[in-house]
Amino acid sequence: MNDSVQQKNKCKIVVDAMGGDYAPHNAVEGAILAAKANPNIDLFLVGHKEKILEVLKEKNLQFDINKLIHSTQVIEMGDAAATSLKTKPDSSIVVGCQYVKDKKADAFVSAGNTGAMMTASTLIMGRIPGVGRPTIGAEFPSTRGFCYLYDVGAGKDAKPQHLYEYAVMGVIYAKEMHGIIKPSVGLLSMGEEESKGNEVTLAAYRLLRDSELNFIGNVEGRDILNGPADVVICDGFVGNIILKFGESVPKLLKYLLQQTAKQSLLDKLKIGFSKGVLRKSLKSMDYQEHGGVPLLGVNGISIIGHGSSSSKAIKNMVSKAYHMFEHQLVKKIENSLKNNQNK
Amino acid sequence: MNDSVQQKNKCKIVVDAMGGDYAPHNAVEGAILAAKANPNIDLFLVGHKEKILEVLKEKNLQFDINKLIHSTQVIEMGDAAATSLKTKPDSSIVVGCQYVKDKKADAFVSAGNTGAMMTASTLIMGRIPGVGRPTIGAEFPSTRGFCYLYDVGAGKDAKPQHLYEYAVMGVIYAKEMHGIIKPSVGLLSMGEEESKGNEVTLAAYRLLRDSELNFIGNVEGRDILNGPADVVICDGFVGNIILKFGESVPKLLKYLLQQTAKQSLLDKLKIGFSKGVLRKSLKSMDYQEHGGVPLLGVNGISIIGHGSSSSKAIKNMVSKAYHMFEHQLVKKIENSLKNNQNK
Repeated sequence: MNDSVQQKNKCKIVVDAMGGDYAPHNAVEGAILAAKANPNIDLFLVGHKEKILEVLKEKNLQFDINKLIHSTQVIEMGDAAATSLKTKPDSSIVVGCQYVKDKKADAFVSAGNTGAMMTASTLIMGRIPGVGRPTIGAEFPSTRGFCYLYDVGAGKDAKPQHLYEYAVMGVIYAKEMHGIIKPSVGLLSMGEEESKGNEVTLAAYRLLRDSELNFIGNVEGRDILNGPADVVICDGFVGNIILKFGESVPKLLKYLLQQTAKQSLLDKLKIGFSKGVLRKSLKSMDYQEHGGVPLLGVNGISIIGHGSSSSKAIKNMVSKAYHMFEHQLVKKIENSLKNNQNK
Repeated sequence: MNDSVQQKNKCKIVVDAMGGDYAPHNAVEGAILAAKANPNIDLFLVGHKEKILEVLKEKNLQFDINKLIHSTQVIEMGDAAATSLKTKPDSSIVVGCQYVKDKKADAFVSAGNTGAMMTASTLIMGRIPGVGRPTIGAEFPSTRGFCYLYDVGAGKDAKPQHLYEYAVMGVIYAKEMHGIIKPSVGLLSMGEEESKGNEVTLAAYRLLRDSELNFIGNVEGRDILNGPADVVICDGFVGNIILKFGESVPKLLKYLLQQTAKQSLLDKLKIGFSKGVLRKSLKSMDYQEHGGVPLLGVNGISIIGHGSSSSKAIKNMVSKAYHMFEHQLVKKIENSLKNNQNK
């Protein structure tokens, strides 16, 4: 009895063994580490059988060979997202997404081609009823802890309804995964007044204001790092640009410090002395640290990782997939958008 | 003879004595400092006569009273831009712009209400023939020196043609005012490939590619602080958000350092020791340092300053107006857009 209950709660996670710059090594190792740490994870690996077996042998890792899903193709980092799904139907990404679609798994995790992963997840798993467009968020450090920005690149030319959906999904994620009680939502715009914005944000403002969300109105660019909203909403074009701008700040700082050091030996010494403490302080600006991000709004759990993912990053991605499963994120998004849709 | 040539080259600049949080003191003092430093500046002050005279007396400043343009109204910082032009026709901003329109002056400088200043400059001075929409740029520190971002807030919902115009104007400004020989232009988008972008940037890409500009293609968010383009183009909505995001970075850094200092006494000491050098290095990220920015594309010189402008900032704004006059920016923009318009 107890055993069957446990069985029921197990989360079936497929990990793309071929995904990422250091595949299959990091992917296989990270996935097995995650499963080892959490007995409720039922792990599957998808990819070229021989290559996976080699890694298992080389690293002396234990893995049930019946849970190895053989696929013959790999979508490379440079492949075009849309066409690769058709030209590589037996790729690890397509097969992994299909497993979730067929309810043979709850989640798929990959550090492979981001575009292909987004497209495959959306087209194969399908969207949650009520979701017009799935979204990817980013976690920014902020003077109040963290700020979650949606969307950072899943979609461009968003419609007002899409921005509203991003807010609903982002709030559920912040609440369930980060324990924020009633996440506040800000709409990214050119000024705080309701009248400020472009055509799309002006219409989205009305949708958000009339919703059940804890909407605090428009916020400005400065409010991401230093403002009142837990969740900030923008279209994927703006979000992608801000994310990459933010990622480039540490590099500029390093350059500016080097320039200062060149001017004076004392300054050079001071900078050398405080290098470690600076690096430590800036760590939260290194978004790569966080492991993968979920594509919210697809009908299943899809976690997308950086190509350069380490074993540890893969492990974190698998754990994230498990927590999304545990918190029933997909079900909650569906319920929330069903309830709010026509308000 | 010599005297008349000099007379001809003099630049007539009207400064809004009532503009800014510290008006009329800073405005009057800064303007007079600038004129004193450059005999080719023919200075006019616009504002309430009594109040200006008070400052002149209080600060013991010399000023030709015939160049004092009396106006009875002031557009306050909180006034709505569009309506204030109608309700306050005798405001210093309206009167100053009218002086340029009537060719009684070459330039108008104000640290007053930014929105009102943009609207008044555009509506009263009018646009340069060939310019669909004026633009404001921002100067970002970059690992290659500086990067100039257009537009940062003059217009939103830009059309492809507007983005092209921003590029032409930004290039002329970078060339004439900063001495960059053949400024490279990047179009801000979600990826470097020509196919990446939203509807507007995809169309703008083609206009830029087919122009005579030194267009290097799409650039990403990271390329502003750390990329190959001298001039980066985006619509005012995106630019305004990036500008304000960038301005908030030093505050976040301060917070992150404080958090690190709380964890360890040694780290606290190290941070304390290097505080000065950090502040020095970050100085170029403080955009307020640069004084005002020109509204490019209006038929005359219009310089808009921060409300908090110091006397020194006002002085820099007046000098900037003079250099734009000296380099015939307005004429060059007109010629350039006339030549390129139908290519």
